[in-house]
Amino acid sequence: MAAMTIEEKVGQLGSRWLGNDMQEEETDPEETLNVAPMQDVFAASGTISLEEASRQGLGHLTRVYGSKPLTPAEGAAELVRQQQIVLANSRLGIPALVHEECLTGFTAFGATVYPAAIAWGATFDPSLVERMAAAIGRDMAALGVHQGLSPVLDVVRDYRWGRVEETIGEDPYLVALLGAGYVRGLESAGVIATLKHFAGYSASRGARNHGPVSMGRRELLDIILPTFETAIREGGARSVMNSYSDIDGVPAGADPWLLTEVLRDKWGFTGTVVSDYWAVPFLASTHHVAADETEAGVQALTAGIDVELPDTLGFSAALIDKVPHELIDRAVRRLLTQKIELGLLDADWTPSSSVADAAEVRLDSAANRELAREMAEKSIVLLDAGTALPLDPSRRIAVVGPAADDARTFMGCYAFPNHVLPRYPGIGLGIEVPTAIEALRSEFSHVSYARGCDVNSDDRSGFAEAVAAAREADVVVAMVGDLAGLFGHGTSGEGCDAEDLRLPGVQADLIEELLATGTPVVVVVVSGRPYALGDIAGRTAGLVQAFMPGEEGGAAIAGILSGRVQPGAKLPVQIPRHTGGQPGTYLQPSLGAENTGVSNLDPTPLFPFGHGRSYTSFEVDDLRISSGEVPTDGEFTVTVRVRNTGERAGDEVVQLYLHDVIGQVTRPVKQLTGFARVPLEAGEAKDVEFTVHTDRTAYTGRDLTTIVDPGEIEVLVGTSAADLPCRGKVTLTGPVREVGRDRRLVTPVEVRKA
Amino acid sequence: MAAMTIEEKVGQLGSRWLGNDMQEEETDPEETLNVAPMQDVFAASGTISLEEASRQGLGHLTRVYGSKPLTPAEGAAELVRQQQIVLANSRLGIPALVHEECLTGFTAFGATVYPAAIAWGATFDPSLVERMAAAIGRDMAALGVHQGLSPVLDVVRDYRWGRVEETIGEDPYLVALLGAGYVRGLESAGVIATLKHFAGYSASRGARNHGPVSMGRRELLDIILPTFETAIREGGARSVMNSYSDIDGVPAGADPWLLTEVLRDKWGFTGTVVSDYWAVPFLASTHHVAADETEAGVQALTAGIDVELPDTLGFSAALIDKVPHELIDRAVRRLLTQKIELGLLDADWTPSSSVADAAEVRLDSAANRELAREMAEKSIVLLDAGTALPLDPSRRIAVVGPAADDARTFMGCYAFPNHVLPRYPGIGLGIEVPTAIEALRSEFSHVSYARGCDVNSDDRSGFAEAVAAAREADVVVAMVGDLAGLFGHGTSGEGCDAEDLRLPGVQADLIEELLATGTPVVVVVVSGRPYALGDIAGRTAGLVQAFMPGEEGGAAIAGILSGRVQPGAKLPVQIPRHTGGQPGTYLQPSLGAENTGVSNLDPTPLFPFGHGRSYTSFEVDDLRISSGEVPTDGEFTVTVRVRNTGERAGDEVVQLYLHDVIGQVTRPVKQLTGFARVPLEAGEAKDVEFTVHTDRTAYTGRDLTTIVDPGEIEVLVGTSAADLPCRGKVTLTGPVREVGRDRRLVTPVEVRKA
Repeated sequence: MAAMTIEEKVGQLGSRWLGNDMQEEETDPEETLNVAPMQDVFAASGTISLEEASRQGLGHLTRVYGSKPLTPAEGAAELVRQQQIVLANSRLGIPALVHEECLTGFTAFGATVYPAAIAWGATFDPSLVERMAAAIGRDMAALGVHQGLSPVLDVVRDYRWGRVEETIGEDPYLVALLGAGYVRGLESAGVIATLKHFAGYSASRGARNHGPVSMGRRELLDIILPTFETAIREGGARSVMNSYSDIDGVPAGADPWLLTEVLRDKWGFTGTVVSDYWAVPFLASTHHVAADETEAGVQALTAGIDVELPDTLGFSAALIDKVPHELIDRAVRRLLTQKIELGLLDADWTPSSSVADAAEVRLDSAANRELAREMAEKSIVLLDAGTALPLDPSRRIAVVGPAADDARTFMGCYAFPNHVLPRYPGIGLGIEVPTAIEALRSEFSHVSYARGCDVNSDDRSGFAEAVAAAREADVVVAMVGDLAGLFGHGTSGEGCDAEDLRLPGVQADLIEELLATGTPVVVVVVSGRPYALGDIAGRTAGLVQAFMPGEEGGAAIAGILSGRVQPGAKLPVQIPRHTGGQPGTYLQPSLGAENTGVSNLDPTPLFPFGHGRSYTSFEVDDLRISSGEVPTDGEFTVTVRVRNTGERAGDEVVQLYLHDVIGQVTRPVKQLTGFARVPLEAGEAKDVEFTVHTDRTAYTGRDLTTIVDPGEIEVLVGTSAADLPCRGKVTLTGPVREVGRDRRLVTPVEVRKA
Repeated sequence: MAAMTIEEKVGQLGSRWLGNDMQEEETDPEETLNVAPMQDVFAASGTISLEEASRQGLGHLTRVYGSKPLTPAEGAAELVRQQQIVLANSRLGIPALVHEECLTGFTAFGATVYPAAIAWGATFDPSLVERMAAAIGRDMAALGVHQGLSPVLDVVRDYRWGRVEETIGEDPYLVALLGAGYVRGLESAGVIATLKHFAGYSASRGARNHGPVSMGRRELLDIILPTFETAIREGGARSVMNSYSDIDGVPAGADPWLLTEVLRDKWGFTGTVVSDYWAVPFLASTHHVAADETEAGVQALTAGIDVELPDTLGFSAALIDKVPHELIDRAVRRLLTQKIELGLLDADWTPSSSVADAAEVRLDSAANRELAREMAEKSIVLLDAGTALPLDPSRRIAVVGPAADDARTFMGCYAFPNHVLPRYPGIGLGIEVPTAIEALRSEFSHVSYARGCDVNSDDRSGFAEAVAAAREADVVVAMVGDLAGLFGHGTSGEGCDAEDLRLPGVQADLIEELLATGTPVVVVVVSGRPYALGDIAGRTAGLVQAFMPGEEGGAAIAGILSGRVQPGAKLPVQIPRHTGGQPGTYLQPSLGAENTGVSNLDPTPLFPFGHGRSYTSFEVDDLRISSGEVPTDGEFTVTVRVRNTGERAGDEVVQLYLHDVIGQVTRPVKQLTGFARVPLEAGEAKDVEFTVHTDRTAYTGRDLTTIVDPGEIEVLVGTSAADLPCRGKVTLTGPVREVGRDRRLVTPVEVRKA
């Protein structure tokens, strides 16, 4: 290959999104996203042809499949067309790397919609998430897609944030392990996984999307960053995407500490850093730390962003006179290394060969659906079986609520039907998605339905019909929750933040009216975030939390309600008691977690992190700790016995929490350090052994180094953050030990017959 | 004097609170404060006699006057008794320094209750606050009190926090200038002012009192700390009290960076640092960063706390073997220097001589009341005159609401009637405080009253009577808001945090019922925090915000409503539209302040910071800037003309905001940089000239140094943060300049005849 000119190197750092420019032409103007900062950049990029954008080569092609409804064949043809333009218009003929979204499955028309990420969290099952991601990756790879912009590894800090549904939960270890599972799966298909949003995005002020983040380095290092470190080291992720927001005034996309010192120098990451969409120009237009897009590009490149998405605005040729060329070399080397790994520079690569398998691809295959079903079933949390669950099949069931007859309520905001199709009315969802009412009618004999209200309106005109249906039934199933969308077009999702944690619209009022009938009411919340259920606690005949369960969600919910499916999921977020009081998650020191009386506000939740019931019962006991004293560079094992004490098979998630009793700084009252989802036949018992290296107790000390601190560690094991019957302790002895880049990030668990 | 032993030195670092131990005996158990961490320390300290506590000398006596209802004579006698015990039981006979609370006036039985601090903020009048504090100081000094634990210089970050009423507002410059005024006043009487809470307390997570603070150094340096720096340098404060909370894991009371590096080394502070009550043992019992009280004492002393309040728990003789004695010397030298300054070591000092003037003291003198009246009148904000204000005296007025007939609603939680007297039922308030209804009956001829509901209960049984009264009247005055208390015994005050910003109890529902009558409704909110008024905006016949206006509040409110008093106050906090969405104040970068569409949540307020109407009208125009280009070490003047365009005299607060257009880090869209409350006769015009040194544009840059950054500065002048008709710009030229400890903290203003 001829030596690259500096212009050709810069060309590789950019991208082009053709699909986005087309949105105005054929779509529903009601559903147009009216977001001022984005309109500005649409306007700036929309006039550049792909030919022009490719003159010096092009780094990425943006969302060829994911921008409008195309069949795999149409998408593949469009991809071939675009790659040919890239090749034909550049001297070196280097193909573009092709990226797509894939958070709840491949974000493309007709592709399987798996449960939202918050539902993966509820499975507590890394290998299941890995299998799902492998299936997603295979479908994408077969269509010539090289990189997927998932998973989201933000740790939930505020339930009001719209993107809670895109996260795996509020505990860094749960997010890290399931996130690493996703990465392993996607990468196993040869598709580059992209960890986002690096870092701090989830803690925006007032939970407003893109809002400023008030956070110190210690919280960042101990809570926010370990998920990324784990997914890189344990999952093998090859790409990272920056967070939109600033932390203490410094936008992540312009932060060399984050993107280079921590990510590269400390962790040894060698992949690419891609910008979140328009995050480079946003340094000028929304953060105002740069005068224009070129200066924004200088700051982003200098900090450590390698590739600008979704269009080239800051990483233009204007950079050439503004930055040391070593910075351009650094970025282009990282990207081209990946293009070589992907075979894009192989002699036999052609645009057509990259989609040679496209004809074979069934984006919603039976195998996919089976995985979607398993994910859905394993992700639905039985909060409280109450008096009515499982439902007696002989009873008359009145189903009520807007989540019962709209399959879109099962899908996250990055599922194609919610992400793109609202702009294309009249063409359906592209996949078969039975609604809950359809599934309930298959599952039960005596089912009536009255919608009652919409997800998000103040219209109460349907209440009377719903109340009448409730009066005529033996039991009510009230299905309430969210409808995901983008930038205000939903109650959950990107740009759909909640002012408080009251159920959207008049759904809480509908439940009150149903409760007032005296007919027992089972409430099923189908949502992307936890809602405050304190007002109805203890008054329902059963309570189920389904986090957007995907295309097989209807049958899964019906199965949980009937008992055909044994619930085994656990909460990856707390269910709060009160609608206000945010932010506040379980992972807090005493003054954040406990109700001490120094404030009148009680921070304890209605249902704790890790909580979830089953139709059988379990006991966790017989705690054994290998040693009461362990040196600060040693390890110990924690073993408990878990027994199914009920009459049918089921899964229990055995959870290990540690509590550092006295720290150099305030320490959480408990922190999840290990878990295992254990299937148990009726009466069966198993031993669960956690091998805890002292690295797993490490935290950021006074001087901001990561240390293992001698002293007492409380060991707590049980079935949720609040049900911890097994309590012991270990004393760490010896000196304070600083841990390095080889620190153990995972707690191995062995499950064996008792 | 004989050389002090090390034990005698440690003795000086401690304190004893006798009054607190007595509370169980004679008080109302219903009003006992049930706060677990405090019960623990009460128990630990309650058994130590003052004789025993004084064996090695004693640093402070805690709240001799302020703990139970005592007349000045009784309190003086008790103080003499306690000082005599201190002298008699210690070898060296050094008197104790005597401290009391004095936030809304001397916190003592029968003393004047001035408006709450948040109301001082609304006056925008530093010299008035200074006169008030001087009066407070004179009363305290006459009773032998040496130190007052005020002012609170926390900058509001979250309106839900219970202690918002104790702050001066949400803008650092407003808080700094009014805080410095308070300090000058108190210190002018020889009483040591104590700046609290150093630092970060107001930003606790979820606004829960003592909750963890997520904050980086830059926000701390730019928003939280300047109020303290200003009150030390411009006010001459001689003491600082630590914050209870941790910032990013490090409790303020154990933070040498904060208490020594910043306060001493950077700012040159030479006074004492006293602990907030029990903040030393709390390092062990609530923060869990120390194993026991002694280790807590070691950390606190090492970090820079000099005196432990209110009782000796961590600063005991056990310290002697645990810390370098230089640390003890350092602390005792600071305290003894102050005792010498106060004359406590003078040969002629005696316990009796310290209260020689006690017989003269009238704690609620006519002069005090006159000051309280002036403060009250100048602090009440006319949000919207609507159609009904000023009220026509010939109309029939139905007064409704719980703030109308309870004088305690006018007082903050540190006012003696709310702080102490709830535990002593049946003895009244100790001062004459006309209620609003009494004042309204003096002001108007045709007044009826129906309470409607309590401040904080769900009892709607009084609604019908209130609605009936409304129906029979020409206009309704609905008086709603807060009743301050401690630790859950109020709706505002220490430990009385709000879950959201809905008016407490059923008061919002009461207003709805009144609005539904069709009779015009004027709403008067008497509160310690801003409440969300979006639901009633545009539907009332007038809207008034009275921040707890003190003992003269009733007549002041009546005067504002009648027009006898000309409103001139301005909001020191925004009035939000929505009940949720916190935290969020006006001082934010674009993504925090503006409604860009990237979030569906609109952060803009119902009424902006600095807003306040009058019964006359003003125009601000004719902007003159001395130079369009100024070197980064220069200064410029900004001049505007303000004119009273109405028909009666009034005050306008002319406000200067600056906006740093492009920063090294995200910068606020506007920041208050100067202000002047300008009295104007009808038709009169004045020129207001601000002299802005470039230091006043300084902020914390990327590398955490404080810099003046070249580039464009927008200059905005007007009458609120959202009414800024005068807009110009200045370009700062030359190099980035680092500012030092001599930086200008104040913007001089000259007001002259136009």
